[in-house]
Amino acid sequence: MAATNKQWIVENKDKGFDGLVYKETSIPQVGENEVLVKLEAASLNYRDLIIPKGMYPFPTKFPVVPASDGAGEVIEVGSKVTDFKKGDKVATLFNQGHQFGSIDIPATQTGLGGVIDGTLREYGVFAEKGLVKAAKNLSAIENSTLTCAALTSWNALYGLKPLKPGEYVLVQGTGGVSLFGLQFAKAAGAIVIATTSSAQKAEKLKQLGADHVINYKEDENWGETAKKLTPDGAGVDHIIEVGGAGTLKQSFKAIKYEGVISVIGFLGGVDPKTQPSVVDTLGHICTVRGVYVGSKALMRDMIRAIEANDIHPVVDEKVFTLSEVREAYDFMWAQKHFGKLAIKIC
Amino acid sequence: MAATNKQWIVENKDKGFDGLVYKETSIPQVGENEVLVKLEAASLNYRDLIIPKGMYPFPTKFPVVPASDGAGEVIEVGSKVTDFKKGDKVATLFNQGHQFGSIDIPATQTGLGGVIDGTLREYGVFAEKGLVKAAKNLSAIENSTLTCAALTSWNALYGLKPLKPGEYVLVQGTGGVSLFGLQFAKAAGAIVIATTSSAQKAEKLKQLGADHVINYKEDENWGETAKKLTPDGAGVDHIIEVGGAGTLKQSFKAIKYEGVISVIGFLGGVDPKTQPSVVDTLGHICTVRGVYVGSKALMRDMIRAIEANDIHPVVDEKVFTLSEVREAYDFMWAQKHFGKLAIKIC
Amino acid sequence: MAATNKQWIVENKDKGFDGLVYKETSIPQVGENEVLVKLEAASLNYRDLIIPKGMYPFPTKFPVVPASDGAGEVIEVGSKVTDFKKGDKVATLFNQGHQFGSIDIPATQTGLGGVIDGTLREYGVFAEKGLVKAAKNLSAIENSTLTCAALTSWNALYGLKPLKPGEYVLVQGTGGVSLFGLQFAKAAGAIVIATTSSAQKAEKLKQLGADHVINYKEDENWGETAKKLTPDGAGVDHIIEVGGAGTLKQSFKAIKYEGVISVIGFLGGVDPKTQPSVVDTLGHICTVRGVYVGSKALMRDMIRAIEANDIHPVVDEKVFTLSEVREAYDFMWAQKHFGKLAIKIC
Amino acid sequence: MAATNKQWIVENKDKGFDGLVYKETSIPQVGENEVLVKLEAASLNYRDLIIPKGMYPFPTKFPVVPASDGAGEVIEVGSKVTDFKKGDKVATLFNQGHQFGSIDIPATQTGLGGVIDGTLREYGVFAEKGLVKAAKNLSAIENSTLTCAALTSWNALYGLKPLKPGEYVLVQGTGGVSLFGLQFAKAAGAIVIATTSSAQKAEKLKQLGADHVINYKEDENWGETAKKLTPDGAGVDHIIEVGGAGTLKQSFKAIKYEGVISVIGFLGGVDPKTQPSVVDTLGHICTVRGVYVGSKALMRDMIRAIEANDIHPVVDEKVFTLSEVREAYDFMWAQKHFGKLAIKIC
Repeated sequence: MAATNKQWIVENKDKGFDGLVYKETSIPQVGENEVLVKLEAASLNYRDLIIPKGMYPFPTKFPVVPASDGAGEVIEVGSKVTDFKKGDKVATLFNQGHQFGSIDIPATQTGLGGVIDGTLREYGVFAEKGLVKAAKNLSAIENSTLTCAALTSWNALYGLKPLKPGEYVLVQGTGGVSLFGLQFAKAAGAIVIATTSSAQKAEKLKQLGADHVINYKEDENWGETAKKLTPDGAGVDHIIEVGGAGTLKQSFKAIKYEGVISVIGFLGGVDPKTQPSVVDTLGHICTVRGVYVGSKALMRDMIRAIEANDIHPVVDEKVFTLSEVREAYDFMWAQKHFGKLAIKIC
Repeated sequence: MAATNKQWIVENKDKGFDGLVYKETSIPQVGENEVLVKLEAASLNYRDLIIPKGMYPFPTKFPVVPASDGAGEVIEVGSKVTDFKKGDKVATLFNQGHQFGSIDIPATQTGLGGVIDGTLREYGVFAEKGLVKAAKNLSAIENSTLTCAALTSWNALYGLKPLKPGEYVLVQGTGGVSLFGLQFAKAAGAIVIATTSSAQKAEKLKQLGADHVINYKEDENWGETAKKLTPDGAGVDHIIEVGGAGTLKQSFKAIKYEGVISVIGFLGGVDPKTQPSVVDTLGHICTVRGVYVGSKALMRDMIRAIEANDIHPVVDEKVFTLSEVREAYDFMWAQKHFGKLAIKIC
Repeated sequence: MAATNKQWIVENKDKGFDGLVYKETSIPQVGENEVLVKLEAASLNYRDLIIPKGMYPFPTKFPVVPASDGAGEVIEVGSKVTDFKKGDKVATLFNQGHQFGSIDIPATQTGLGGVIDGTLREYGVFAEKGLVKAAKNLSAIENSTLTCAALTSWNALYGLKPLKPGEYVLVQGTGGVSLFGLQFAKAAGAIVIATTSSAQKAEKLKQLGADHVINYKEDENWGETAKKLTPDGAGVDHIIEVGGAGTLKQSFKAIKYEGVISVIGFLGGVDPKTQPSVVDTLGHICTVRGVYVGSKALMRDMIRAIEANDIHPVVDEKVFTLSEVREAYDFMWAQKHFGKLAIKIC
Repeated sequence: MAATNKQWIVENKDKGFDGLVYKETSIPQVGENEVLVKLEAASLNYRDLIIPKGMYPFPTKFPVVPASDGAGEVIEVGSKVTDFKKGDKVATLFNQGHQFGSIDIPATQTGLGGVIDGTLREYGVFAEKGLVKAAKNLSAIENSTLTCAALTSWNALYGLKPLKPGEYVLVQGTGGVSLFGLQFAKAAGAIVIATTSSAQKAEKLKQLGADHVINYKEDENWGETAKKLTPDGAGVDHIIEVGGAGTLKQSFKAIKYEGVISVIGFLGGVDPKTQPSVVDTLGHICTVRGVYVGSKALMRDMIRAIEANDIHPVVDEKVFTLSEVREAYDFMWAQKHFGKLAIKIC
C-alpha cells in the first residue's frame, strides 16, 4: 500500500473553485464495520460544482473531500464486515445513511462529498453500509458514474410508480440523469422521447436508443408535440424533469393523466415564481415528485439491471486525472462535456 | 311506477342558480345494458354549484340534469345486465366511464351531472358500468354522499401510495372530502391531524376520531405545528389538500420526506401565482398529486371498507326535498352546512 | 356482408374431437353495447382440446362455439358502444367479464369458447367489454394468439409482483405461455433461463433471446443448475411453471427466496400427490401462485408492451383454414406444433 | 453496571431441554457499531423449543444463547453508532442481517438465538442494525414479544399484497402469530374470522376483536363456513396458516380467488404428503406464500402501527424469571400458555 494518500479538499463555501485544494495525507484506519477502498475513478455532478460556490441547498460541512461518485477496490475490511472482502470491486452510495424506503432527516445529513468525505482521493474509508458491489460489466470509470445521476434516474422511474414495458418516458437534454433515464427506460421496454437543442446531440440520443427526438429550439411547444407522439395523444407516463426555464410548462403539456413528473434538479437561473403552481397538478390530473438520489435498496436493483442489460454509462471522451480535478471542474462548469465527466484516479 | 318523472335541469352556464329549472318529463326507457333507478337521495358538491356559474374547469354539456351523487333502488334492468337485478340498492359512479386504473381522456367526458344527466330527478337510467352496489350499512341519504367526496378522499389515500396503519394523515377543514379522509384514515389505523377555525368544529372533529386538531386561525404556522406532532418531527405521510389560500404553503411545511400531498380542490379566490411552485417538491423531497375523483375499482374497495368498519358519512342535519333544490344550492353556497348536504328524493 | 356464417360447434363433452361439428348459421344481430366482428384468425390452446374431451376443470356449456383466441375487424357497433368503431381491429378477452383486479366467481363463468360462444366462426358478436384494440404491429394471425397464452404469461410476470429489469425468469419448454414469457421478460430487461429437451428447440429459444438454455433430459437436476446461473446462486425471481411431472420439484430448487412460481397449467398425467406440498413454500421461503389468464386491464398493458417492443408471437408454420379445424385439433393433440397453432379464417 | 452477566446456553441439539444451562459470564465489550443492551424481558417461540431438540430446519450453531425475542435499555453505544443513544428502549430483530426487501441467503444465517447469541441473558451486545426502537406504548415484557411472532404476522399481511381496510382475514387458533394477526387486521379496518377449539378461547378472541369465531372441533368443514361469511361467498383475502394437520385443506376451501395463504409454521406431527399440492393453487386461483419472519423495514412499520393503535400484545398471565427459563420451556411445551410466554429479566 502507498504510504501517502493524495486528496482534494473543499475548504469552504466562499471561494468557489479556488476553495479546491490538493493535499497529501495519510491513509485512514479502517474501523470494525468499515472498508478501506483504493479509489480507481470518480465522476463529477453539477452538485459538486455548486458546493464550493455555496449554492447547494442540502447539508454540507467544511472542509470536505468532494464528490459523491466513486469506484474502486477493497483493500482491507474491518473485523466485523460481512458484505465485502479484500479484492471486491465497489461503488459508493450517495446518502450513506439511506439504506431503504423513504429517506429520513438523519440520512439527508450523510451526503458523500457534502457532509461525509467523498471520493476525490486515492484511498477512502467508508462504512460498510455506504458501499455496494460494483457492476461486473463496467470499468472503474463507468462504475464511478452510478452514485448520483444514475440512481436519481432509477429512483425517478422505479421509486414511486414503477415503469412498465410499453410506457412512454420523456427525458430532457443530455445531462447525466437524462441519459441514464434514456438507457434504463429502453432496457425496460419503454418508448423514449428525448429533447435536445442540436442535430448532433439528437444523433447521439438516437444512437442510445431514443425513439423520438425533439429539437426544443426549433419546436418551442415541444410538450404538445411529445403528447401527440403517444397512443391516442394520451400523453407521456414518466417525465424526468431537469428543471430548466420553461421546461416544466412543457412537461405539464406532455404528461398523461396520472403520469409522474420527477423533478430532479435546478439548472439554475430559474425563478420559481415563473414555474407552474402545484395546483396545476389538479388541472392536469398528474403527479409531481421531487427526487433526491435514492436508497441502497434501489441502487442494488439498478446495478442488477445494468449488469443484465449490459448498460454502459455515457462518459465524456475527455477523462481527467486526480491532479487535474480543478481543470475538470472548469471544464464541466463551461458545459463542455457530454455525458458523465470522469476522473481517473489510478 | 309513477307516470311522471320530476327533475331539475341546468339550462346553461350563464345564469348561475337561476339556470336551475324544475320540470316534469317521462320516465326514460332502459337499454340492454342499462339500469332504471328510482332515486331515493342525492347530495351536492361544490362542483355542482359552480357548473351553473360557468366556473367548472372540466367538460360539461347543457342542458343537463345536475348532481353526480345519488343512491336509489333498481326498478328495471336491461336484457343483458348481469351485475344488478330489480330491488338492488345502488349508488352512482362519478365519471361513468372510469372503470379501473388511471383515468383517460374519454372518461373525463363522462362526468355525471356535468356531461351525462345526473341524479336530481326521481328516475334515471344509468349504464350498468356506471353504478355500484350501495353500502349495506348505510341509508339512501348516506349512500348518496359517496360518489364524489368520499371517492376522492379514498383515491387520495389509496390511489397512488396506499395508506398503512400507523401513518399520519392531515386533513383540512370540515368539507366533505376532509371528513371522509378523517374517517377512512381512522378506520385504517392511521393517526389524523385535522385543522379547523372554530372550537365547535374542533369538538366535532375529535368526536369523529381526530387525534389532534389545530385551529389554523390561532396558529398561522400550523404546518410546522403538525410536523412537530409526528414521531421525530419527521412530518405527515399523507395530506389531503383542499387548496385554500395559503394552505399549500403550510402543507409543504408539514409533509414528510416522500410524503404525498393530494390536491383535491380549489376553494376559489386563490391566485395560483401565490401558490408554491412545483419545483418546491424537490426542496421538500415530496410528491404532489392532483386527484380527480376515482375509478369504479376504487369505489368498490371503498364501499367494502365502509361496510366492514360501519363508517357513516357526516350529513348535515338540514336535509332538503327534491322540490327545494334551489334552496339547497343557496344554503350550500352560503356555507351553512357541516358535512354533506343531502336531498331526499323519495 | 356474407349471407351466411360458418362456424364450429362443440356439441357436448362426451365425444372428444368427434363432438366438433362444422355448421352454417346466420350472422348474429348486434346489441346496443355489442360489437359485430368479422373474425380473421383464431388460435388454439390446450384448453380448447380438453373441453370436448370433458377434462376442463372450469365452467363450460354445450353446445358452444369453441376457442377463446381470435382477432378480426369491427363490422358494426351497437348504438351505445363508445370504445370501438367500424373498421377497428380487435382481439378477444378470455374471461369476458374479467375487467380489472382479481377475478371473481361470476367472471369465471364468462370464458370464451367455454361458456360464451368463441372464435371459430366467420362472424361473432361480442360484448364491448369483451374486446380490446388489436396490437397495431401484428397481423390478424399474430393478434389471434394473445387472448389466452400471452395474457397468462403477462399476468404471471406482472399480476402479483411486477417483474423488474435485471431479474431472472425461468420458462419451461416451448409451449405458448413459455415462449411469450421468454419474449416479455427479454423486452423488460430480465435474464431468461429456458429449459427444453432438444438441441434444435434450444437453438430456437436462443434466437428468441434466451440467455441460458438447459436441456432437462441431459440434466435432470436442472433446477439446481438454473440456481447456479444466478448472481451469488441466489436463485430465480420468477418461474412460469407449466406443471409437468417433476417440474415443480425442480422449480423449488431453482427459486429465489421470496421468488414467485406461477403455476399456469397441468400438462396432464401428473399425480398431484407426487407434487411438492404447499408447506414446502415455507422451507423455500417462496410464493406459489395459480394464474388463470388475466383481466382486460392487464391485456391492455400487455398489448402496449407488445407494440412498443414490436414483439411478434411465435406461430407454427403450419396454419389451418376454418374448414380444417378438426385437423388442427388432431395436429395439436399430437404435439406437432411449435409455438401457437393458428387458424386463418378469412 | 453489574459485574456479572447471567445467561442461558443451549449446549447442543442432542439433549432436548436438558441442553439448557444457566451460567455466569462477564459483560461483553461493545464494538464500534454495536450497542450494549441491558435486557429487561424476553419471550419464547415454538422455534426456541425445537432448537435444543434438533428439529429446527433453519441454520443454528452451538453453544448459543437462546431466544430471538427481547427488549431492554441501551447502556452503552459504540463510537460509530448513530441510531441509538444511552437510555433508548430497544427491541431485537430476528434475522439480524435482514434489513429490507427479500431475505437473502446470508441473512438466513443471522437468526438471533439460532446462529447469533440471543436474549436469555442479562446483558447483550447487538449490532446497531440488529435493533429497533421499542414501541413507546408498551412495557418491556410487551416489547419483548414483537421480534418473531408479531413480525411474522405483519409480514404475512403487508409483505407481499398489503392488507386493505374492508378485506377479510382468517387466523387459526390462539398462538402468538394468530393473535397478532387478529390485532393487526382489526387495527387496519379488516374483518377477522378466527378459529379455535373451545368456547373459552372463543370468548377471548371476540374480546380481542374477532368478528366471527368458528369452533373447528364442532365444524370440521370450517373452511367453507368461513367462505360463506364473506360478501357473496367470495372467500377470505388473507389467511395466516399455522400449518396444522388438515388446516391447509380448509384454508383452500376458505380462500378467495387471488387471495393469499401465508404459511408461517409447522405445528409438528404433520405429514407433508397429506397436505394439498402446490398445483392446487391453480384450481383455487390463489397464492400460497412461505413467510420467514421479516425485515427491519417491516418491523419499523409494524411498531409505528402498534404505537398509533395502542396495540398491546397478549401475554400469558404466568411470567417466568430468568432463573426459571427451564420451567418456562416445559410450560410452553405442554401448551399451557395463552398468547406469548414472557421471561422477566430485570
